[in-house]
Amino acid sequence: MKKIWIKNATILTMENEELIYKSNLYIQGNTIYHVGDKLSDFDANKIIDANNNLVMPGLINAHTHVAMTLFRNMADDLNLEDWLFNVIFPLEDKLDRKDIYNGAKLGIAEMIASGTTSFVDMYFFEEQTARAALEMKIRGFVGHGIGSNKLESRYQRSLDLLNEFKDKNDNLITPIVAPHAIYTNTKESLKATKELKNKFQTLLTIHLNESQNELKSVQEKFNASPFEVAHEANLLDENTIVAHATHLNEKDIQIIKNTKVSLVHNPVSNLKLSSGIMDVQNLLNQGINIALGTDGAASNNILDMFESMKFASLLAKIKNYKPTDLKAFQVLQMATTNGAKAVGMENKLGKLKKDYLADLIIVDINNFNHFPQNNLINSLVYSTSSKDVITTIINGEIVYDNKQILIESFNYPKLKEEINQTLERIQESN
Amino acid sequence: MKKIWIKNATILTMENEELIYKSNLYIQGNTIYHVGDKLSDFDANKIIDANNNLVMPGLINAHTHVAMTLFRNMADDLNLEDWLFNVIFPLEDKLDRKDIYNGAKLGIAEMIASGTTSFVDMYFFEEQTARAALEMKIRGFVGHGIGSNKLESRYQRSLDLLNEFKDKNDNLITPIVAPHAIYTNTKESLKATKELKNKFQTLLTIHLNESQNELKSVQEKFNASPFEVAHEANLLDENTIVAHATHLNEKDIQIIKNTKVSLVHNPVSNLKLSSGIMDVQNLLNQGINIALGTDGAASNNILDMFESMKFASLLAKIKNYKPTDLKAFQVLQMATTNGAKAVGMENKLGKLKKDYLADLIIVDINNFNHFPQNNLINSLVYSTSSKDVITTIINGEIVYDNKQILIESFNYPKLKEEINQTLERIQESN
Repeated sequence: MKKIWIKNATILTMENEELIYKSNLYIQGNTIYHVGDKLSDFDANKIIDANNNLVMPGLINAHTHVAMTLFRNMADDLNLEDWLFNVIFPLEDKLDRKDIYNGAKLGIAEMIASGTTSFVDMYFFEEQTARAALEMKIRGFVGHGIGSNKLESRYQRSLDLLNEFKDKNDNLITPIVAPHAIYTNTKESLKATKELKNKFQTLLTIHLNESQNELKSVQEKFNASPFEVAHEANLLDENTIVAHATHLNEKDIQIIKNTKVSLVHNPVSNLKLSSGIMDVQNLLNQGINIALGTDGAASNNILDMFESMKFASLLAKIKNYKPTDLKAFQVLQMATTNGAKAVGMENKLGKLKKDYLADLIIVDINNFNHFPQNNLINSLVYSTSSKDVITTIINGEIVYDNKQILIESFNYPKLKEEINQTLERIQESN
Repeated sequence: MKKIWIKNATILTMENEELIYKSNLYIQGNTIYHVGDKLSDFDANKIIDANNNLVMPGLINAHTHVAMTLFRNMADDLNLEDWLFNVIFPLEDKLDRKDIYNGAKLGIAEMIASGTTSFVDMYFFEEQTARAALEMKIRGFVGHGIGSNKLESRYQRSLDLLNEFKDKNDNLITPIVAPHAIYTNTKESLKATKELKNKFQTLLTIHLNESQNELKSVQEKFNASPFEVAHEANLLDENTIVAHATHLNEKDIQIIKNTKVSLVHNPVSNLKLSSGIMDVQNLLNQGINIALGTDGAASNNILDMFESMKFASLLAKIKNYKPTDLKAFQVLQMATTNGAKAVGMENKLGKLKKDYLADLIIVDINNFNHFPQNNLINSLVYSTSSKDVITTIINGEIVYDNKQILIESFNYPKLKEEINQTLERIQESN
């Protein structure tokens, strides 16, 4: 069994706002064995000297579409309709399974290298994303997007994904149900979705109340808000993860509180597509669980949770003109403990604590942007670059160290070549 | 004479939106000698293989207070009044010349390492910032802050700075006039400021229309907007650099257009202190020159122009709910050519062009965040990390390469030690 001892660490456990200095963290198998004083009887087969760098829980990216890294910087500065209908959809139509697998691998590599250890994903050919996640040894909560268009095949793919991965006791992949949104569904397809959720008793993720256009079109189609429609379709409960929620009325907020869904704030995407700014602080104040996400690379353009933390905090300060809103530690909670709660693993993920899963990162704090070290917790939100991540451990495995992805099968030159071929193919035929 | 040949470069000259691939850039002395085809008769004494990485003009940070890096992460998540009167001002009162020198050196090191080659600065003991800039070989436009409080000594220090550096023909340091703001000045102190500007015929920088509280207090004191007061005091012309301008009425905009001042957008600081969001796209559309700044580390908390570019573009997209606003190339112009125009050097800085000053950076684009390379220009704003900067050249000197500051006198361990002593001293006596 793998036994790792990390020594000389400054540790942020996320159990509270305290840092532990010159301390130790022990990993046994895929689990944290001990945090704190040095153990005399731990027979480590791998010792990592943290060199006084900072150790913290790995970040949980609660909303993304990893395979969309294929489209990075391809559809910028566009209106949402242009973006979606004239660029993204036509390109997506041409992607095959292998393309999704490669795109997912690239996105996962980027996430691992920037401190993300878990992600919640919705896309198509999602079994390929699951496969890529397994291979890259990252924790993935993956759902095949369901919409009314081509419902039958989408339903079938979703069913296949759920069946294929539901019993794999690998601890890494959780198949989930992923209706795309209300405006892309009908009552019939939402009903089918609900059946899947009931049958598999798993998480469900959906985009709701992202933009004003969406609110308008759902109002016209259903005579209700997306949240109301989703609630009526019985999709919302404490196992539901709702992305965006940038525009909410009082009724929506009541539904969120009653059903105990988790929300995911995607600040960068919400700006890039001019969607709106979630009222994060007021929603948190009402006891609502809010996690953090990057969204896909086509609307961000990087899967960088450190950047998203800074955007989240600063946007909250302008939302209600209160510089005291969304303090650094609250944002860190969004990216760790709140994310863990959203995926139903608050007793296993998001903190560095005995018996929790060993998902953690080491951040280099010996650089200009961390000096002087007046407040390291604030640093993590306001000064740390994702490029300061030097080590990423997931499920007890060191998957990234010293700027290198440590997955034997990960062949970056080959991946790049294949992705470039894909891009040539899909752009030529455009 | 130093003669540098950079080969195998992807070059963004900022003359237009085109990239030049597999190209060359030649530097002779402090000047760009040639961009483009390989020269057969250039006898380089230093050859840099850019390895297909991207070469672009160095970034111009048009508004900062570099020495405030001392306070990094020390005053976060606070109301402006708490921030200023209970944290920053009391700490500043305890700083001596050496502290400012050290703080400036640290901030300059951070800027050099993150791709900034010129900066406009306002602070006190500003001759120390000038000294640090000279030593660190960065291009600095430095002004001693003038306010009505202790006017005599501030005026004298400003005069001394202007006299000391006005004739130094080093090409690097330009002393400027720097009235802090309208709310911290009186008619008398503004008049004294104007005399300095007239006498030295140099640039002037000032904070105007940053926050709603400021507008209110200036209205009460002067019965006019900060822009109107500054205009009436004859401080505004094409050699004036105005930071912030987040709240403008029609009259203010007319003054800006008539006087041809340059504005500096500081998106991160404006969010952090809940100041407001500048209406950048509409102001640009009216022909107003807008540069980009980080502001000081106490209100940012890093001096990272790449980060500020992304914030600028994305904030503009939510300001008027238009995702097509402030496209990537426009933001790059703000950080380069518009900055050059603001400091009166549009024919010398901000572009890679024959006879322009050799201020440029090399950006590593062989990493996950730059792949696939669907659009490198967009990458620079939306995907590039300041940590991707591998080489910084200022005035023909390689000041940063391979993650190292190449200034012989720069002793980082010693600097850290001295700054830690300063922080102990000023916090103990608090």
